[in-house]
Amino acid sequence: MRVLIVGAFGTIGKYVTQELQPDTEIITASFSQGDVRVDLSSIDSINTMYESLTGDLDAVICVASRGVVLKHLTEMEVTDYQDSLRQKFFGQIQLVLAGIKKMKTGGSFTLTTGIMNQDFIKHGSAPSVVNSAVEGFVRSACLELPNQLRLNAVSPALLEDSVEAYADYCPGYEPVSGKKVARAYRRSIYGIQTGQIFRPE
Amino acid sequence: MRVLIVGAFGTIGKYVTQELQPDTEIITASFSQGDVRVDLSSIDSINTMYESLTGDLDAVICVASRGVVLKHLTEMEVTDYQDSLRQKFFGQIQLVLAGIKKMKTGGSFTLTTGIMNQDFIKHGSAPSVVNSAVEGFVRSACLELPNQLRLNAVSPALLEDSVEAYADYCPGYEPVSGKKVARAYRRSIYGIQTGQIFRPE
Repeated sequence: MRVLIVGAFGTIGKYVTQELQPDTEIITASFSQGDVRVDLSSIDSINTMYESLTGDLDAVICVASRGVVLKHLTEMEVTDYQDSLRQKFFGQIQLVLAGIKKMKTGGSFTLTTGIMNQDFIKHGSAPSVVNSAVEGFVRSACLELPNQLRLNAVSPALLEDSVEAYADYCPGYEPVSGKKVARAYRRSIYGIQTGQIFRPE
Repeated sequence: MRVLIVGAFGTIGKYVTQELQPDTEIITASFSQGDVRVDLSSIDSINTMYESLTGDLDAVICVASRGVVLKHLTEMEVTDYQDSLRQKFFGQIQLVLAGIKKMKTGGSFTLTTGIMNQDFIKHGSAPSVVNSAVEGFVRSACLELPNQLRLNAVSPALLEDSVEAYADYCPGYEPVSGKKVARAYRRSIYGIQTGQIFRPE
């Protein structure tokens, strides 16, 4: 199986790459390193990345994490939601829309959402909006994909690696290991399900 | 109770106004008529509308319906999702953010979402995204509202009035009466719940 991993060098990306390495042909992509470069905030950059790839793909995984705004509701402005959607939503959408013609029949897209639209945190209205939008896209768009393509998302809980950074936001959250989260991406690309939000916890 | 109804003359707005009229002081708002005018696609217009109101409000209801893009996934572009969010999401957010300081303690905001992120229709990935974003906002933002303010949304099913227009999109959908949908808005503003998505079906 030939898989493009966008955000391959990030916190989750490293675990996913490690998980798939033994039996998967991996093409790494990120903003500043890897086999191909891509700026997820730019539609043109995503299109250029796909054009630069020779041969078709069995799967595209997006684990690129960009900053979503964390601010108290009373300090939020509409532009904060717009910026947050630009960071984590529109780029993932374009990876699917532009990727359709690069995929082998039965191939799959796996996006990344997060728990913050299920288990709310302080200052977290933007991530709640963004993750909800990603999930709304996955569950509806999967129904109109051509060529038996599939579309899922993984919603990682609080990563063990991120406990310290998010301690103030996630009191009492049960941390999940990177290995466990990575297996959800394997489940998505090697399995047969579509329109699913996998929630490794 | 003093209530601002944005979109008071639309399909749902008329039923909500009729439902509340007997015991509620209503201020009507819409793009082209009513006590105050507002263009929901313009942040400035929303701010100006609030500034033009004298006295505080007990509730703000948004039932303004603007066109969300309906197209097959393979014809969608990222700009279609951006346009759709501009039509039905960002304006509703701004009604809440800018409205906070106009509300009496314990007042409420009631936004409008829809069934298309639960019961998917063809060409419906944009409404699924938009409705999911609205619900993600409501369920998280309600937790950080000051002054005991509340925030809910109503998710109307297929309206009896819209059966003909949406016949091709909603095969076998159980239509709901405008009166029943209007009661969900009453429940939101006269009740005590917050962070709820009311689904009259």
